[in-house]
Amino acid sequence: MSKPKEVTIYDLARKLNVSIATVSRALKDDPVVSKKTKKKIFDLAEEMGYRYNHFARNLREQRTYTIGVIVPRLNSYFMSTVIAGIESVANNEGYTLIISQSSEDAGKEIASAKTMFNNRVDGMLVSLAYDTEEISHFDQFIKKNIPLIFFDRVSDHPECTSVLIDNRKGAYEATSHLIAQGCRRIVHLTATPKRNVYIDRLAGYKQALADHQIPFDEKYVLINNLSQEAGTQAAAAILQMNPLPDAIFAANDNCAVGCMLTLKKAGIRIPQDMAFAGFNNDPVSTVIEPNLTTINYPGYKMGEMSAASLINHLNGVNSIDTTNTILLRSELIIRASSLKTKSDSE
Amino acid sequence: MSKPKEVTIYDLARKLNVSIATVSRALKDDPVVSKKTKKKIFDLAEEMGYRYNHFARNLREQRTYTIGVIVPRLNSYFMSTVIAGIESVANNEGYTLIISQSSEDAGKEIASAKTMFNNRVDGMLVSLAYDTEEISHFDQFIKKNIPLIFFDRVSDHPECTSVLIDNRKGAYEATSHLIAQGCRRIVHLTATPKRNVYIDRLAGYKQALADHQIPFDEKYVLINNLSQEAGTQAAAAILQMNPLPDAIFAANDNCAVGCMLTLKKAGIRIPQDMAFAGFNNDPVSTVIEPNLTTINYPGYKMGEMSAASLINHLNGVNSIDTTNTILLRSELIIRASSLKTKSDSE
Repeated sequence: MSKPKEVTIYDLARKLNVSIATVSRALKDDPVVSKKTKKKIFDLAEEMGYRYNHFARNLREQRTYTIGVIVPRLNSYFMSTVIAGIESVANNEGYTLIISQSSEDAGKEIASAKTMFNNRVDGMLVSLAYDTEEISHFDQFIKKNIPLIFFDRVSDHPECTSVLIDNRKGAYEATSHLIAQGCRRIVHLTATPKRNVYIDRLAGYKQALADHQIPFDEKYVLINNLSQEAGTQAAAAILQMNPLPDAIFAANDNCAVGCMLTLKKAGIRIPQDMAFAGFNNDPVSTVIEPNLTTINYPGYKMGEMSAASLINHLNGVNSIDTTNTILLRSELIIRASSLKTKSDSE
Repeated sequence: MSKPKEVTIYDLARKLNVSIATVSRALKDDPVVSKKTKKKIFDLAEEMGYRYNHFARNLREQRTYTIGVIVPRLNSYFMSTVIAGIESVANNEGYTLIISQSSEDAGKEIASAKTMFNNRVDGMLVSLAYDTEEISHFDQFIKKNIPLIFFDRVSDHPECTSVLIDNRKGAYEATSHLIAQGCRRIVHLTATPKRNVYIDRLAGYKQALADHQIPFDEKYVLINNLSQEAGTQAAAAILQMNPLPDAIFAANDNCAVGCMLTLKKAGIRIPQDMAFAGFNNDPVSTVIEPNLTTINYPGYKMGEMSAASLINHLNGVNSIDTTNTILLRSELIIRASSLKTKSDSE
């Protein structure tokens, strides 16, 4: 497939009978060139399909105005909300995003990082895959002074900022609420404890038990990939427990919903027999019946905050070197799935 | 912020005491260079953080191995599924995606197209915003022989392929099914009739009515933005109708779900008083009670098919010039929200 010849500033200059320098200056909006001439040049550039030579410019300026974004999955409500937040800030500041998903796979994350590096992104925003064990694949950015910000699924790194919520506190509040409703045998559905978000939620769950003199029992922690289907499978395991648990705290709403649907079919009454709490405030939490108690998780805000920190750093407005962690607010939203108070008096 | 000096092939050559030509050939995997020497060069390149000079290469080859993707919204389950499909094919073929969302705004779509054009993408995959009236902002690509494929929200263009489902057929099947359940006053919730998907679904709805001798009534077509909140508002309008409709066919599942939740609160029994059908087979359709009858919409497949067509064209394997439209299969999934047969015998 042959491409038509690229329109150059020489073509514009020849056609308008002006110097190449004039065209070049006009395109840079140099005040030396009159407004009238500029307009003529802009109009012709538009008409002939002239493309500003970004690559050549980039080679000179060493900036690409591109931000690399690596997320675990694009088809999650939370993540697409974060990306919408990132994009809104990036677009306003003239940056283009290159987005890639690791599909929760460390190998793919490493490959994506390499691609982003070779594409010379100006900065990176990263949320880690489930199974990423170590993060040396990001050292190439650090070595080149390319700033990197972790969001949500973060890793402690002396030269990177992390933007996240206090997952431990969120989990502590959800678990304490279930305990306040009279629950004592609380199952925790969560993902592999390699990622901060799940480590911290498990820690918050344990702390709440300890603070209420409820012994921690390993068998109540069920590890899966937190999908809706995984929730369905977890329900089968829960139904085998003897005695049955009296509450479930899931590390995300989708998994909680899959679990609830299956338990309901098995005749379990929610919240009377088992109270439920999730995490994320996904829209599905207000569709499931009874509506799901959850932790409200500010995805859009997290995206905006991450992008703004990175771009401020790139523009020299505010360095991230001195900022280790930015914690966003989360909050417990209590709904019918956990409110046993009335049901108890039945 | 100063960047460390870029590592060049000169640095690699000096350090290994070999010629620059040898390094250059090794990096191109030229068989002239011995495996042993290549390994030494690759290892050092890795260690020193050498970056293949993509920009220089791109200037030479006139290819960027980048595909531009413009979607209306990232935070929709359907769209993020399509993107996952696009990405899986693109990554396998060595292409990077530049993703942008128009946020359903024609102006933003025009700006995104300009950015993609100036970034010299090799090809474009586009799904149009709600309010895009005409598509001359894509002419710049056509003029440069940069292939463009529309998916889902498409526009007829003699030089572009469209990948979509038969929306008319899907809507016809959903509406006919509601009629077969005995419904006669069927409300259609849909979006602005500027986009093919909504024009075609409306046409399918009308055709089904006509084929069953049910007169079309303009007042039964409610236009909104198809969000869950819009469904809530539509429910309020529906409750004002006299007589009440006996079925609702919504052009997406989210809007159907918002509408169902509100009607249920108002005491409407589903499906006995009003039967429901949606569109998309969003996961929420199996969470709402009763489960929502819907049209299964192959988002992942649509993404894979669009990306594969574009990349085959770019690689000269299969030209899109002769392909006008690729129609993917969709299917009606009947669930409890529309099954009145048993309820009717109450």
